[in-house]
Amino acid sequence: MSDYPAAETAVLLVDPLNEFLSDGGKLYPYTEPIANAVGTVANLKRLVEGARTAGLTIAYALHHSNTGGDYDGWNFLNPSHKGARDLRLFEAGSFGVQVHPDVAPQPGDIMAREHWTASGFAGTDLDFLLKQRGIDRVVIAGNRANTCIDSTGRYAVELGYHATLISDAIAAFSQDEMDATINVNWPSFGHAVLTTDQFLGMLG
Amino acid sequence: MSDYPAAETAVLLVDPLNEFLSDGGKLYPYTEPIANAVGTVANLKRLVEGARTAGLTIAYALHHSNTGGDYDGWNFLNPSHKGARDLRLFEAGSFGVQVHPDVAPQPGDIMAREHWTASGFAGTDLDFLLKQRGIDRVVIAGNRANTCIDSTGRYAVELGYHATLISDAIAAFSQDEMDATINVNWPSFGHAVLTTDQFLGMLG
Amino acid sequence: MSDYPAAETAVLLVDPLNEFLSDGGKLYPYTEPIANAVGTVANLKRLVEGARTAGLTIAYALHHSNTGGDYDGWNFLNPSHKGARDLRLFEAGSFGVQVHPDVAPQPGDIMAREHWTASGFAGTDLDFLLKQRGIDRVVIAGNRANTCIDSTGRYAVELGYHATLISDAIAAFSQDEMDATINVNWPSFGHAVLTTDQFLGMLG
Amino acid sequence: MSDYPAAETAVLLVDPLNEFLSDGGKLYPYTEPIANAVGTVANLKRLVEGARTAGLTIAYALHHSNTGGDYDGWNFLNPSHKGARDLRLFEAGSFGVQVHPDVAPQPGDIMAREHWTASGFAGTDLDFLLKQRGIDRVVIAGNRANTCIDSTGRYAVELGYHATLISDAIAAFSQDEMDATINVNWPSFGHAVLTTDQFLGMLG
Repeated sequence: MSDYPAAETAVLLVDPLNEFLSDGGKLYPYTEPIANAVGTVANLKRLVEGARTAGLTIAYALHHSNTGGDYDGWNFLNPSHKGARDLRLFEAGSFGVQVHPDVAPQPGDIMAREHWTASGFAGTDLDFLLKQRGIDRVVIAGNRANTCIDSTGRYAVELGYHATLISDAIAAFSQDEMDATINVNWPSFGHAVLTTDQFLGMLG
Repeated sequence: MSDYPAAETAVLLVDPLNEFLSDGGKLYPYTEPIANAVGTVANLKRLVEGARTAGLTIAYALHHSNTGGDYDGWNFLNPSHKGARDLRLFEAGSFGVQVHPDVAPQPGDIMAREHWTASGFAGTDLDFLLKQRGIDRVVIAGNRANTCIDSTGRYAVELGYHATLISDAIAAFSQDEMDATINVNWPSFGHAVLTTDQFLGMLG
Repeated sequence: MSDYPAAETAVLLVDPLNEFLSDGGKLYPYTEPIANAVGTVANLKRLVEGARTAGLTIAYALHHSNTGGDYDGWNFLNPSHKGARDLRLFEAGSFGVQVHPDVAPQPGDIMAREHWTASGFAGTDLDFLLKQRGIDRVVIAGNRANTCIDSTGRYAVELGYHATLISDAIAAFSQDEMDATINVNWPSFGHAVLTTDQFLGMLG
Repeated sequence: MSDYPAAETAVLLVDPLNEFLSDGGKLYPYTEPIANAVGTVANLKRLVEGARTAGLTIAYALHHSNTGGDYDGWNFLNPSHKGARDLRLFEAGSFGVQVHPDVAPQPGDIMAREHWTASGFAGTDLDFLLKQRGIDRVVIAGNRANTCIDSTGRYAVELGYHATLISDAIAAFSQDEMDATINVNWPSFGHAVLTTDQFLGMLG
């Protein structure tokens, strides 16, 4: 049996947002060099199209859309909370919080509640919705390598899922961040690291 | 020291929605007898006003707003999922999913992500947002006694919170449901059962 | 297909302990009337034997074994924590914390970490271990109806499991507690309420 | 006010085990070069002694002690599960699963349930026990940098805690692993990275 039976596998896109991936996104200047070098958007597009053709579930885990004052009264803002607040990232209704049009959601996809920090599972219904569909394998891509991608992968493993990283369908602000996730961490905690081509070659 | 210091206590309203509490709400015919008998809306209003005056945090845990097709492909719908689907409860944009106007949210209140089932904590950011404000005591009211109220209280205790039920600021479909939560269950797992007057008398 | 395919179903025994079920258990005086009336131990035995024969997984969720001082420094003891402390319930190494010999664990059974309060899922590895075995349906029995049984069932549903109560393989301190769980609550949140005979009749 | 008030702060030791830190530990050959270079054990000892003197809580999050057959029937073993099984790591009753004697637990310390994978919070009662003591800040040290330390830190942040890494009271199998956690990841998701001396200098 394939490691990725269609009925049990979801491609899980974490923050595939214009903010990171599109000209005009507020973080695009930071991700552009890596995204261009690895072909993140083109690979995400092929990944999602191939997965849809093979009948896999597509799931989206998107970052909190800020409406102003969201962090007022918090005791312990972490760097990503401060960045979101101070740089006005992920503003509700903005271009940045839209999913990149090449991997736009379709009816029937899983849309998890928005996450506040890094893990797509923390404080959301992602685990519940995956379980309701009988999904026990997640294939993770999106942004940003060493924060949301890494954290979502770690949570997936702790929750009992099989967790695969698509190493050329992610981006980050530096090669060090890419290396930390792809070469150092995921091989220590996850189940597989594959390129888009390798993964698509394993489907049907 | 009071059991309810203002900086550490939130009044947590679970599903204080028109669907349950207002003429025209789809479940109001079922809750109206109990709600009228105990004065649920009037007590909720006094509870929230008193808590605001005393400087407590107000938190809202609201049910998922259905947009159609939300339960497609699910393996295991429970009775509340089936009811929401079949009776078209909690429809996004409807009168029913609005908070009752007498206890409407104000800027600065905690608005947790919507819950799919019964516990305001399950698959939501409620615990995270309470922690970020330093809240460790929750005072629970709303609907429906033996489902969302009871489940949210049980989760609160398991998560380490002090959990109080306001016995006359809830409603249910039958007196048996009220009794199960107020007289049988909460005294077994929770920290306190108080009327609105008793609780307000302990503030300031 | 059966609602209870062997490879996907676990009989989940919550606190099937001598403390509740055996002469000499500290809580047995409180559960004995109900346990005798419904035949709890005999039904638990038939339930587990039938499930083992049919190839189902058996899982145990057991209460924390107290070693003395366990609750020192806690902010918010609930009634069950206070009871355990003051009545010296569930003492490590005692007769009371042993599983009733008629339903003793066998090699290969799932043994979840002990729980502190009521839900067998809260603060334990039960969900993780069930997932690692591919279990998505739980059939719950044990003690005490309106505390651990009810809470474990609520968590199961919130986590995406199909949750069945075996109504004559549980016990409680009063008929009100039994009624609250069997007749009022489980039908509102769970997927099925069956007797031992009804459930066994649905297996292979 | 200090960032680390004694009543609200715990030094959280993740896997400070002989297996990693002592001659004879099965993983010590892999951690010894880094542990010697940074002085991990000596720093852990000073960290814990200083924290005890200042009145902070000490908490332990220890890895699952294997008893044989623990991973039988699991669907998705990750690399650390396979390593534990195949190399017979963390065997119950062995020298390796004992806490290093220089930082041995004392009565009143928090002892969380054992974790199966990397995060000290996942599938354990750690969050519950910290909350019961009113702890909202954790200061993390132990092993191994990019697995258990990194994962425990990520969970702490997602759960609403202030999370500090003690960069010279951890160890790993390579400098790349240390760098990934200390220089790349923690500064992206956590609240502080301090040496033992820096942290102790901030207490009382």
